[in-house]
Amino acid sequence: MIDRYARPRLRELWSDLTRYQRWLLVEIYAVEAWEKLGHIPPGVAQRLRRATVDPARVEFYEARYHHDVLAFISAVAETVDAEDAKYIHFGLTSTDVVDTALSSLIVEALDIILEGLDALIEKVRQRAIENKWVPVMGRTHGMHAEPTSHGLKWALWWLELGRSRDRILRARQGMAVMKISGAVGNYANIPPAVEAYVGERLGLTPAPLSTQVLQRDRHAEVIAALAILGGTLDKMATEIRLSQRTEVGELEEPFASGQRGSSAMPHKRNPIKSEQISGLARLLRGYVVPALEDIPLWYERDISHSSVERVMLPDATTLADYMIHQMIRIVEGLTIRADRMRENIEKTGGLIFSGKVLLALVDQGMSRDDAYQVVQRNAMAALADPRQSFQERLREDPDVKARLSSDELEDLFRVEPYLAAIDAIYQRLGLEE
Amino acid sequence: MIDRYARPRLRELWSDLTRYQRWLLVEIYAVEAWEKLGHIPPGVAQRLRRATVDPARVEFYEARYHHDVLAFISAVAETVDAEDAKYIHFGLTSTDVVDTALSSLIVEALDIILEGLDALIEKVRQRAIENKWVPVMGRTHGMHAEPTSHGLKWALWWLELGRSRDRILRARQGMAVMKISGAVGNYANIPPAVEAYVGERLGLTPAPLSTQVLQRDRHAEVIAALAILGGTLDKMATEIRLSQRTEVGELEEPFASGQRGSSAMPHKRNPIKSEQISGLARLLRGYVVPALEDIPLWYERDISHSSVERVMLPDATTLADYMIHQMIRIVEGLTIRADRMRENIEKTGGLIFSGKVLLALVDQGMSRDDAYQVVQRNAMAALADPRQSFQERLREDPDVKARLSSDELEDLFRVEPYLAAIDAIYQRLGLEE
Amino acid sequence: MIDRYARPRLRELWSDLTRYQRWLLVEIYAVEAWEKLGHIPPGVAQRLRRATVDPARVEFYEARYHHDVLAFISAVAETVDAEDAKYIHFGLTSTDVVDTALSSLIVEALDIILEGLDALIEKVRQRAIENKWVPVMGRTHGMHAEPTSHGLKWALWWLELGRSRDRILRARQGMAVMKISGAVGNYANIPPAVEAYVGERLGLTPAPLSTQVLQRDRHAEVIAALAILGGTLDKMATEIRLSQRTEVGELEEPFASGQRGSSAMPHKRNPIKSEQISGLARLLRGYVVPALEDIPLWYERDISHSSVERVMLPDATTLADYMIHQMIRIVEGLTIRADRMRENIEKTGGLIFSGKVLLALVDQGMSRDDAYQVVQRNAMAALADPRQSFQERLREDPDVKARLSSDELEDLFRVEPYLAAIDAIYQRLGLEE
Amino acid sequence: MIDRYARPRLRELWSDLTRYQRWLLVEIYAVEAWEKLGHIPPGVAQRLRRATVDPARVEFYEARYHHDVLAFISAVAETVDAEDAKYIHFGLTSTDVVDTALSSLIVEALDIILEGLDALIEKVRQRAIENKWVPVMGRTHGMHAEPTSHGLKWALWWLELGRSRDRILRARQGMAVMKISGAVGNYANIPPAVEAYVGERLGLTPAPLSTQVLQRDRHAEVIAALAILGGTLDKMATEIRLSQRTEVGELEEPFASGQRGSSAMPHKRNPIKSEQISGLARLLRGYVVPALEDIPLWYERDISHSSVERVMLPDATTLADYMIHQMIRIVEGLTIRADRMRENIEKTGGLIFSGKVLLALVDQGMSRDDAYQVVQRNAMAALADPRQSFQERLREDPDVKARLSSDELEDLFRVEPYLAAIDAIYQRLGLEE
Repeated sequence: MIDRYARPRLRELWSDLTRYQRWLLVEIYAVEAWEKLGHIPPGVAQRLRRATVDPARVEFYEARYHHDVLAFISAVAETVDAEDAKYIHFGLTSTDVVDTALSSLIVEALDIILEGLDALIEKVRQRAIENKWVPVMGRTHGMHAEPTSHGLKWALWWLELGRSRDRILRARQGMAVMKISGAVGNYANIPPAVEAYVGERLGLTPAPLSTQVLQRDRHAEVIAALAILGGTLDKMATEIRLSQRTEVGELEEPFASGQRGSSAMPHKRNPIKSEQISGLARLLRGYVVPALEDIPLWYERDISHSSVERVMLPDATTLADYMIHQMIRIVEGLTIRADRMRENIEKTGGLIFSGKVLLALVDQGMSRDDAYQVVQRNAMAALADPRQSFQERLREDPDVKARLSSDELEDLFRVEPYLAAIDAIYQRLGLEE
Repeated sequence: MIDRYARPRLRELWSDLTRYQRWLLVEIYAVEAWEKLGHIPPGVAQRLRRATVDPARVEFYEARYHHDVLAFISAVAETVDAEDAKYIHFGLTSTDVVDTALSSLIVEALDIILEGLDALIEKVRQRAIENKWVPVMGRTHGMHAEPTSHGLKWALWWLELGRSRDRILRARQGMAVMKISGAVGNYANIPPAVEAYVGERLGLTPAPLSTQVLQRDRHAEVIAALAILGGTLDKMATEIRLSQRTEVGELEEPFASGQRGSSAMPHKRNPIKSEQISGLARLLRGYVVPALEDIPLWYERDISHSSVERVMLPDATTLADYMIHQMIRIVEGLTIRADRMRENIEKTGGLIFSGKVLLALVDQGMSRDDAYQVVQRNAMAALADPRQSFQERLREDPDVKARLSSDELEDLFRVEPYLAAIDAIYQRLGLEE
Repeated sequence: MIDRYARPRLRELWSDLTRYQRWLLVEIYAVEAWEKLGHIPPGVAQRLRRATVDPARVEFYEARYHHDVLAFISAVAETVDAEDAKYIHFGLTSTDVVDTALSSLIVEALDIILEGLDALIEKVRQRAIENKWVPVMGRTHGMHAEPTSHGLKWALWWLELGRSRDRILRARQGMAVMKISGAVGNYANIPPAVEAYVGERLGLTPAPLSTQVLQRDRHAEVIAALAILGGTLDKMATEIRLSQRTEVGELEEPFASGQRGSSAMPHKRNPIKSEQISGLARLLRGYVVPALEDIPLWYERDISHSSVERVMLPDATTLADYMIHQMIRIVEGLTIRADRMRENIEKTGGLIFSGKVLLALVDQGMSRDDAYQVVQRNAMAALADPRQSFQERLREDPDVKARLSSDELEDLFRVEPYLAAIDAIYQRLGLEE
Repeated sequence: MIDRYARPRLRELWSDLTRYQRWLLVEIYAVEAWEKLGHIPPGVAQRLRRATVDPARVEFYEARYHHDVLAFISAVAETVDAEDAKYIHFGLTSTDVVDTALSSLIVEALDIILEGLDALIEKVRQRAIENKWVPVMGRTHGMHAEPTSHGLKWALWWLELGRSRDRILRARQGMAVMKISGAVGNYANIPPAVEAYVGERLGLTPAPLSTQVLQRDRHAEVIAALAILGGTLDKMATEIRLSQRTEVGELEEPFASGQRGSSAMPHKRNPIKSEQISGLARLLRGYVVPALEDIPLWYERDISHSSVERVMLPDATTLADYMIHQMIRIVEGLTIRADRMRENIEKTGGLIFSGKVLLALVDQGMSRDDAYQVVQRNAMAALADPRQSFQERLREDPDVKARLSSDELEDLFRVEPYLAAIDAIYQRLGLEE
């Protein structure tokens, strides 16, 4: 992933150096396991711990062998005693090392993602609590529907991010497996004890069964979980973009002092961080396609997944991590304008209370269908000619007059009832200050 | 979904009639709830249970209202007493009904899918047990690697299908929620008690919070889980296709008496069922894209997801169900040719035992790198000129002769050692007859 | 595709009956060709023209043969003299018929799509002309940028739809090919003359080379072209949705008399047609995935593409056709509110003219960087406290005063200059009344 | 894109430095244009040609402005006289520069891709000519169908790559446009003459109309064209992988001296280059999703496409370029084993000639249906018990004996007739040595 969208931890995690070091760790643990089984003389593993790996040397050998793991072994072997070196990779097949190390790296990447996600979730929870009593227009189809609490939006995101957290945790669990089971997964040249030992040292569970590789439904679940998280971040970003619009003005992304919105239009403050998140969510969606296509490998493995994963796994995890932290910055600095929210509620001269009027008329014995037509008739007239308001029109409508007094009508045009259940909702969600 | 790929249960589940009936059920349960709360006179719900819904009448009204739920209400109202009819949809917003009913239908579809999947899993388990001791070439990159047990392939699929089962179960759990929370999800016109009552009757949990709709990360998880299952079925299908090839001949799809393979070539028996599954898996992968794009709805909902779901949800669930049952037919009727598997193992004159020779040479003190070169040198020579076999060449190679006796060498060229760990593996997996 | 999103022509085109009739046409033309070559007695083709095909009979035989073309042949054979029947499918392989007929159907579907697209393009052109002089806020990042002509938006869509038209035409050209080249495409059992004759009768060109099938890059190009068109329709729909928002109110989708916006909120008029288009565009994007995956068929063909295409081709073409006609209805009935557009332009108290002020200051010799800071400083102050307008603040700013007189400043706050180039643009585009 | 899959030219093309230099070029050409129009004193552009841009300085300013173009301008301004610097970006909006430069870079990337593609096409054409008379089994469904010419496969790929070339050329044409039309595309602050001048200097055509940006259907067409090319390369790679299988052995990827196939199995030679291409084709397919989602930008532009394109455009073009050159290496070094192809033809004891027998029986007056059953009956018997061959069985079958003499039958079991039309095909394609 380009530096612009990579935080340092993920960039380093997916570097060549980290990968080779993780391979080395797997190799050393395997030697330890063989030692314990008595197949390798005692002391070798201890001495191999001093081995190092230089990516440039791996590159040098790879140009010769066209095989990265064999190149890696040669590069490592140079840094230790030849007598010890010959035990490196003893009894292993390349993918034992590569796939085990890859699981370890993915799990670590997911842990970093989950750490950020936890921080985001907590900040979103805070916003839910702070904005509990801030009325805002609820909107469906982009149109005013009925007032609601601005805090509920945050509560909704808080829950949805929590569901993504659960999905990523489960995908992480499916991914926290490894394999040292030989060329076709049948332990023909290596006892399961080596696998068990190495797995334990790395904090990974041996897959109950493998071929030459771990099965790629596990990796696909990881990418799908990240893409779903991307969808939720995109949803939050889209609401911010929709709410920052000049005509709406309810939310405003943080705008740093010194920041410039447009080279030609100095007045502009644009929700560019949110737009960026919307864009990056598209990339995450795109990675699901190759992730799914990787599942049907041929027989005990073909290597077509490898080139996909060298790009997709670093890119998808790095982007998800970046997006989370970008969203944290947005949430921290977001300006929430309760005044504009109130103004917008009042903008339609009471039309938004039509649902309440409808229910009141039905309560008074009108058929639902008739009531609907009475309310819609007056609403459309008020829309067409705003000089007489919806409420005034209703007051004069004989069908309404016969059923609702002026005071009863007045009572239907208040925001407060729309927040009546908020306390109960917050309690149910355990959203406490 | 076209009839060709739809089993009757799913076709019926996604019919207009079933959908309207499910809506009606939600409406009636809601009236029951209101009755219990004392807002609707007792007896109404009881009488409304006699209401029916005729899709043709809904269509008639929809042409007028351009609104399906209001059309549905008018169509239902015709079938009951006007006095009762006016309580239909009392206090509800359309999506309360639509989204709750949709959850109920998706959950039912997933239950049918899971029922089929359980049957498939059991059949695959049987094949794993039956083929435990059948040796077959393990293949990587499509090339012979080392022998293994044919049963292990089935065991692997058995486990992977099991993981898909878990994913679908979890997605089902996330989907088994409903909402009757009003136009923007804040219970402004309806108490949570109605939602709780209707949910309990339908076997669904009220979502902890909703907008006008349930959030679409839940639906995306369902589609993603089905697409991952599709990937695994595609993997099985691909292995069957690869194994039925004329030159390989190890597996053969069931071929019905009377069936014809090709209009021009009467000798052909083609793995067309498996090819079909590979194709349908692509469609499943494709549905993940709109499912993910549906997540970022605007504010308290926009309705863009609706058209997507009217196509995607029936199609994806119906295809997944069909594919599972197609695979059951394949697994049931599959010809497994142990004779061809044995022939193929012997085809390369012992080359496949090169890994064993490598390890033996290292065991005898050769460096890994030297041993590799010795073995590769003889293997490549045997490939280039098969008149002298790999084993013969090794026997005459001075570097080998110095370390391995003719008998020791002979011992490395046997299939049995490759199955040595099979018992342990089966035991670990709990794969018992 | 479900009836809701299918216009009758496309529904009929993709019916079983139409498919079998097209197959029959191919078969009859092939017999004609053989007759001309003297391989079949004269008169057979003439008599076969009376053959009919009953989908129910095909289904009957398919249950037996598991092969649709052979079933079709048996069903057709029943309707003619046995002596003639034996010449049906003479020398052909199934896919000769199936793939040739499929090309013919796709081309016909594209022609219907192009017919609709032409109508849409013309209506959009009309709107461009009608709205040439209607000023509207140009918006970037959803925020007010600079005023522009509403007509330009239509002109842009007109051009972009035109590019889609070109792409679909080219995809149609690539698709207007057929093949009667035998089981593996080498004319082993059939002379190219038969292919040439049938192609000419159907208005299709023989593919320069085929395997058993036509190559699927052609079909992928068709689906990609439709998905790109979907993107443009989605763009138009999104602009309508964004512009209908309560706070913006510049555009309004047609709302039929009798139509109902919401079951609970009778005041609502929602852009549901546009939202539907946004949703369906997602489905089109999804179909690109299987279309691309269909390209790498095995050797002279595997049949995995067939199940994909039975769903994807009817669905994608039917949806594209439906979306075009839905958009025609929207464009025809759209309310364009020039008054609201003018109101919105004035909403920010002149802030939108900041770009003009910046340029004027640079023109007066200020460095770009300094000018930017002066303008941004006053803009941000006006945003923070709207009681003093941007223009007033500038008038009192010493850095501005030194360079621009009050009159010169006044002159920068007019909408008209933003429309100065409109005539030239329209002329360049050939957009004449 | 990671270095592993990037050739130097593409890597350099998409570097920060190249991007900024291209921006600078656009800026300088714009100043030239203004000079010619008399708005900027003569000589400025000439002096600005000495300006340079240091990515580190851009980064420095971007940290302050959060705006890359303004940062770029400050960085460039430092390298020239302040008096001249103030004319940089005169009258432009950022995207005038960014989008114009981006088009120029994409076009250059496509030209490099087309250069490689032309080389590949020529090599594939050579293989078609060389292998014209090499018989090989044609295979459908992975099963033996009828013999054909190996050269025809190459001819097919040659044509299909040629179609991809045409698509990329057309996408390039759609992409070879630029815009300098101001903040919302209406030339409010800049005359079209500047755009025309800069376009001409860069070899790009002014878009007939733009908003703040060029419309993203153009970019989507580029990515779709590359993904379709990826599909064709995947098809070639898949055929090589299928043909290298141990049991088939007809094709073999180049295997460098010193190369190692497997760390554990020294005998292995794997088609890893082809597998890599299959993998990378999946990534290309994945990029189509975000490319299509970028089309519906909001109003005169939102910037969500930008983050997508910073990743997708370099990655997709770099991968396509890499895949082409990887395929060139494969095609150059591929071992084509005519001996194994001949052996495989003979493997089924004549079963593959069943189509010829069928036609001969029909020719002799048997009904197609009867003939089919006769041939299938004998074929299935030979498959079940290979001790008596298909031909022998036919010779003894009374239904056959009555119609075909032993000599006539013999004549149906020859490979040569399957190549009878090859000359004509090659001539039609203009495939001459």
